[in-house]
Amino acid sequence: MSLEERLVPPQTKAHASVARVPEAWYVVAEAKALGKKPIPVTLLGVPMVLFRTHSGRPGALLDRCPHRNVPLSAGRVEGEHLVCGYHGWEFDPDGQCRGIPGLVSTAESERGRRAIAWPAVESDGWIWVWASNDVPPSGPPFRFPELPGYAEARRTVLAPGTMHATLENALDVPHTAFLHGGLFRTAKKRNQVTAVVRRYHDRAECEYLGEPRPSGLIGRLLSPSGGIVEHWDRFFMPSIAQVEYKIGTETHFVVTSACTPVSDFETRLFALVQFRTRMPGVLLKPLLEPFARTIFAQDQKMLGLQTETIRRFGGEQFESTELDLLGPQIWRLLRDAERRTVVEPSADGAPFYEKQIELLA
Amino acid sequence: MSLEERLVPPQTKAHASVARVPEAWYVVAEAKALGKKPIPVTLLGVPMVLFRTHSGRPGALLDRCPHRNVPLSAGRVEGEHLVCGYHGWEFDPDGQCRGIPGLVSTAESERGRRAIAWPAVESDGWIWVWASNDVPPSGPPFRFPELPGYAEARRTVLAPGTMHATLENALDVPHTAFLHGGLFRTAKKRNQVTAVVRRYHDRAECEYLGEPRPSGLIGRLLSPSGGIVEHWDRFFMPSIAQVEYKIGTETHFVVTSACTPVSDFETRLFALVQFRTRMPGVLLKPLLEPFARTIFAQDQKMLGLQTETIRRFGGEQFESTELDLLGPQIWRLLRDAERRTVVEPSADGAPFYEKQIELLA
Amino acid sequence: MSLEERLVPPQTKAHASVARVPEAWYVVAEAKALGKKPIPVTLLGVPMVLFRTHSGRPGALLDRCPHRNVPLSAGRVEGEHLVCGYHGWEFDPDGQCRGIPGLVSTAESERGRRAIAWPAVESDGWIWVWASNDVPPSGPPFRFPELPGYAEARRTVLAPGTMHATLENALDVPHTAFLHGGLFRTAKKRNQVTAVVRRYHDRAECEYLGEPRPSGLIGRLLSPSGGIVEHWDRFFMPSIAQVEYKIGTETHFVVTSACTPVSDFETRLFALVQFRTRMPGVLLKPLLEPFARTIFAQDQKMLGLQTETIRRFGGEQFESTELDLLGPQIWRLLRDAERRTVVEPSADGAPFYEKQIELLA
Repeated sequence: MSLEERLVPPQTKAHASVARVPEAWYVVAEAKALGKKPIPVTLLGVPMVLFRTHSGRPGALLDRCPHRNVPLSAGRVEGEHLVCGYHGWEFDPDGQCRGIPGLVSTAESERGRRAIAWPAVESDGWIWVWASNDVPPSGPPFRFPELPGYAEARRTVLAPGTMHATLENALDVPHTAFLHGGLFRTAKKRNQVTAVVRRYHDRAECEYLGEPRPSGLIGRLLSPSGGIVEHWDRFFMPSIAQVEYKIGTETHFVVTSACTPVSDFETRLFALVQFRTRMPGVLLKPLLEPFARTIFAQDQKMLGLQTETIRRFGGEQFESTELDLLGPQIWRLLRDAERRTVVEPSADGAPFYEKQIELLA
Repeated sequence: MSLEERLVPPQTKAHASVARVPEAWYVVAEAKALGKKPIPVTLLGVPMVLFRTHSGRPGALLDRCPHRNVPLSAGRVEGEHLVCGYHGWEFDPDGQCRGIPGLVSTAESERGRRAIAWPAVESDGWIWVWASNDVPPSGPPFRFPELPGYAEARRTVLAPGTMHATLENALDVPHTAFLHGGLFRTAKKRNQVTAVVRRYHDRAECEYLGEPRPSGLIGRLLSPSGGIVEHWDRFFMPSIAQVEYKIGTETHFVVTSACTPVSDFETRLFALVQFRTRMPGVLLKPLLEPFARTIFAQDQKMLGLQTETIRRFGGEQFESTELDLLGPQIWRLLRDAERRTVVEPSADGAPFYEKQIELLA
Repeated sequence: MSLEERLVPPQTKAHASVARVPEAWYVVAEAKALGKKPIPVTLLGVPMVLFRTHSGRPGALLDRCPHRNVPLSAGRVEGEHLVCGYHGWEFDPDGQCRGIPGLVSTAESERGRRAIAWPAVESDGWIWVWASNDVPPSGPPFRFPELPGYAEARRTVLAPGTMHATLENALDVPHTAFLHGGLFRTAKKRNQVTAVVRRYHDRAECEYLGEPRPSGLIGRLLSPSGGIVEHWDRFFMPSIAQVEYKIGTETHFVVTSACTPVSDFETRLFALVQFRTRMPGVLLKPLLEPFARTIFAQDQKMLGLQTETIRRFGGEQFESTELDLLGPQIWRLLRDAERRTVVEPSADGAPFYEKQIELLA
């Protein structure tokens, strides 16, 4: 109502860190979550029905029957087809209409009867959808690390924030001392650490030098004996965040998260945690589980508060410092991709951008 | 928020099958539901208070006191007046202000003190309101069938869909095999049936020829011995849907539904079911009750999903086939009425449009 | 959605009695409600965090961290600073950034790191905020009456109505016979009463002459023996409503309410009730408590219904009579203040507007 619109908080601007990159593969579900029942998913604001035919092929169609516009996710799978629940129209994973009950003539004849379809594949235990229905995939999806013999855990969380805010949060170090105070690291003791940030044409990373073993509970649990710490935070275009820790020779820990833009302010995070420690994985996993749950819940809550505030003010107004290591690099890559600015890889594989800063961690 | 508006699913268009026909009578309540307490109703998006004076006269006023704009439905009836609950202003069923407590001068003197009023009558056990407050009624309301000796049941359901979608659903045959699978008819066995569609200046109908007795449970219950089936689906402008079945000489079944547009995407369906079967009505009624409830609930759910999808996509994009027998005819009549295109009745009472099609049913 | 916008009730206009007067002090909390935890408040639509440093100083900042825009009200107070819960940025009550964990250089150096701050003071048991962050306070806040020896009670209620509607309701006599029927006065017996309305440059008042002792339960409870009634309803710019009753020589009753505009259609009412009667305050207070609760709840409900109706119709359309004594005067003063029309006080302190009317009360 126009009466409402007059009342807005001060210093608002319409910007939000939302970049839409449709020519990419995104994880939309854990593979084992897609059984016989079709499920509704939303990708970049587009409602889709995800289903798996009896032969195992995944399909992703616009979640709207071309006939009377009810959601196809309210239907069912029969053989190789998805069947609408209202009048029984049948579709294959390419969107072709294969049957209309009651009709004497052929169902396939009319173009308007097709359902819009997106490429869908299963890879690394995830279902991926190529978010453009008019541009064919430029290649296969991102590959998650293969680390034989490592313990593994998967987790799916809906983060109430933009894809950018979720990626930045997943790769940000300073907030861990506050938001997750005591778990990772504490604010009390500080060491001076060097961080090297590098941006390439399709990824960005931060390497930490001189970092002590994280002082919190998790650090002591993962690596009781300590050792030299190697730590990288990595971003792969457009939606993957990866944190890797090596502590001494025994401990190796990799968290790879696909951050899928459900809508502008909702991101679904599909995480794979892989680790090797002195303590066997079967023993450590149940110990780490409550920590992981707490950390995800704290980040989820904070991203929700951030989004709520951005909405209340009608836009963002961020003030960055040199401690915001990867967020600005991620934004630059996403925004360039949205604007279709082509960034060619350098001939020698060197970064386009490199910076070294000091921080207390 | 403008940030949101950028993110919309593909191929949207702004059209929706919404036609507003205010110069018509609509059922707004079952007569026995209107007692001493005023009730709020909404007709074509307009909030009204419906009340009945002590002498029995129904009244329909804008649900907003002219004084300080509180809803009159929060007030009470005293004698022949409706009294506002805030400062006690009194109104008669024509909207005239009849009293203002505390005022030394006359309440009736000022024109701005009138409440907007609509014509309201009781007929066939329903309360009807003429939806135009500035054009007088062109005649009495539609009459429901008088069928002496028949069993009767009334039912009121809020359908979360447009008036058009609700009317089409009430008169559509193909969906019954799917959505209500097993109750009316099954998808397994199919007979070729002929349907004749006719459109007149103020109604449309479809007659089915060669139709077998419905194969589902309801068909067997209504007519155990079978017989020749006569079946008509009828629409009367602007809001009445009627389904009539004659099976053999014993069974006669008429469902007349007034589909009142509450708002663009909400329709209240006031149904009268009348029937005569071999089995006495008092025995059959409790048997049919759970079927009726199931069918209404399934249609209600599907209309809700349809509306939700139309809203998500910002409009409809329907693809019709020749099986959509009455929907397009209803839309044509409603749209012409909204545009006030005058369609004169033909001299000989013949239809303006007639078509014969074959279907499997 | 544009589909929705077409359907609106008749005779709507965009006006609503909303006047925004930011250059003023408003009560935002009871002083004793502000302890160690920061609390979120909203004033004129602006989300603020209210906090009290360890030394007792109240602070009011924009409820948005300049860094990553999470609400500061999700943080905590440490010493003289408010600390953000996400990355630990620290702010003093003036909004100056005093610390950024992890940063090697000085936190105070950058202007963009400041949080927007409003003047905040504690006075008469309330926390007051000056609603302009760019114009300094023109003086101290309004003083509540000091009445030594009187019984006192404080009450905070969220009224779902505009500041104007809430002020008018607090100072309106005719509705008490209806909405609070039987409590204050009854509609049965009526005496002719004279009301004198006066408007000054910064306040308005109504004095009642010839008023009988209120006939309802409360009147009999407050003043069993009756006596000459003196009654004033007063408004002080921009947010204070005051009702004063003197009955005979024994009974004196003053209710002063600060009506703070939370948003255009939400007003928080901070009331102080002060009274002296024959019956000792400690005995009368528990007897009056349920009456006060009922009256506030009835007014709250009615203001909510009024607001809901105004929203449904997209604006107000009020029809006033001569019984609406103070509402129009309050509106005139508020609207002039919003338009910054300067009204100079008259040299002799006489009212700008004076009117005498007769009513039945």
